[in-house]
Amino acid sequence: MAKQNIFDNETFFEGYQKLREREMNANNLFEIPELFRLLPDLKDLRILDLGCGAGEACMEYIRMGAKEVTGIDISEKMLEVAREKNSDPAITYICMPMEDIGKLEGGFDLVISSLALHYIEDFKGVVNNVNRLLKEGGRFIFSQEHPVVTCHSDTYGKRWTTDENGLKIHVNLANYGKEGERDTTWFVDNVKIYHRMFSTVINDLVECGFAIEKLVEPLPSDELLQKYPDYYDLFHKPDFLLVKARKS
Amino acid sequence: MAKQNIFDNETFFEGYQKLREREMNANNLFEIPELFRLLPDLKDLRILDLGCGAGEACMEYIRMGAKEVTGIDISEKMLEVAREKNSDPAITYICMPMEDIGKLEGGFDLVISSLALHYIEDFKGVVNNVNRLLKEGGRFIFSQEHPVVTCHSDTYGKRWTTDENGLKIHVNLANYGKEGERDTTWFVDNVKIYHRMFSTVINDLVECGFAIEKLVEPLPSDELLQKYPDYYDLFHKPDFLLVKARKS
Repeated sequence: MAKQNIFDNETFFEGYQKLREREMNANNLFEIPELFRLLPDLKDLRILDLGCGAGEACMEYIRMGAKEVTGIDISEKMLEVAREKNSDPAITYICMPMEDIGKLEGGFDLVISSLALHYIEDFKGVVNNVNRLLKEGGRFIFSQEHPVVTCHSDTYGKRWTTDENGLKIHVNLANYGKEGERDTTWFVDNVKIYHRMFSTVINDLVECGFAIEKLVEPLPSDELLQKYPDYYDLFHKPDFLLVKARKS
Repeated sequence: MAKQNIFDNETFFEGYQKLREREMNANNLFEIPELFRLLPDLKDLRILDLGCGAGEACMEYIRMGAKEVTGIDISEKMLEVAREKNSDPAITYICMPMEDIGKLEGGFDLVISSLALHYIEDFKGVVNNVNRLLKEGGRFIFSQEHPVVTCHSDTYGKRWTTDENGLKIHVNLANYGKEGERDTTWFVDNVKIYHRMFSTVINDLVECGFAIEKLVEPLPSDELLQKYPDYYDLFHKPDFLLVKARKS
């Protein structure tokens, strides 16, 4: 099974860095705040971050009281940035594809993953390993692109239908029921993501021994819409799905 | 809160009867088989059927070994048919809106509902009552229209974009993130359904004390597609969502 590492592609890396540096984007406004809202008290917890990237969140978990954080990422380039900018004696960065986490020692209280799991073909394999790495009662909290987002492929045509002023009217939803690989353009062509239906995400978690505690499909508040009216389009197509599950 | 009773509307009733009489429709091909596949062994169980309609399923549960079935429906007309065609000493039919089930005596092993909950405004209120009516470890198994179906309103324009031959290309998905009342046409105008996002359905169940066991978004098999190629459109828009949950 291919382990995709777009983050070591130069064009992608530069575009991604710029995106993350901008103060306001959908990640900063919706995904990250909602992910942090799902977190339990981190005091003295051992945390594993799957797809930690440049390690910003790992550092934040330490500030919030975590005892130890292990951050894994497939991209050595991202981990170089992490080691330079977000280093701490309690953080260990490991270059490793998410598919290989079975090699890690277990005993984690919490496994977190932000917007990385939709790059993974064998979701259930990862979920199964996460379950084994967690202590009894430990939690798996993750975000991914929303299933009505991951179902799209550039080969299907345009994602949106717009009016004559370019205003988004509706999403062109097709092939939601066809799971598997999709090609999308994100800074570079042919970024591969893997589409799974809502039911597959939930059933895989349940079958691997997780109890679903909460789902979040983030939407903009009225206050946020006044500042950033463009984000109204999230009502048509929520960008993210967040899941909080407990090893049961 | 309005309790909608479209089933006592003459035009609706006749259209609905005809639909149900046809051998092959999406209910018979996808929803009913998947619902039955989710059922546990019914031997000696006490079952409550929410929105039992003409009682076909109640009779089937008795044939499958259930000890007692209580069927409730808001429509006296539907229950007349049920009492005439699907009567059994072990079945009790009660004319009652689903919002009033709190008045029933509890102790059920299983609560089932087929394609009725999307007519209910206060879903969480019903789920809460279902939980109280179930024995510990009892199950709630239901089907509803899929969230990408319930989000549509006739006031948004057409549900589908078709090509020049009338072939369905994609669903025009809008306002998925706006929950609440929708107007649709189904035999009669202004059938009201209530849209809830996926996360709301799951979170309401969890908050009311249910553990999610399995979700199903039915899709056609290759074999079925050969006989009924039109059902390919379910890959773009699954019509149904089925949920199996356990009182935990």
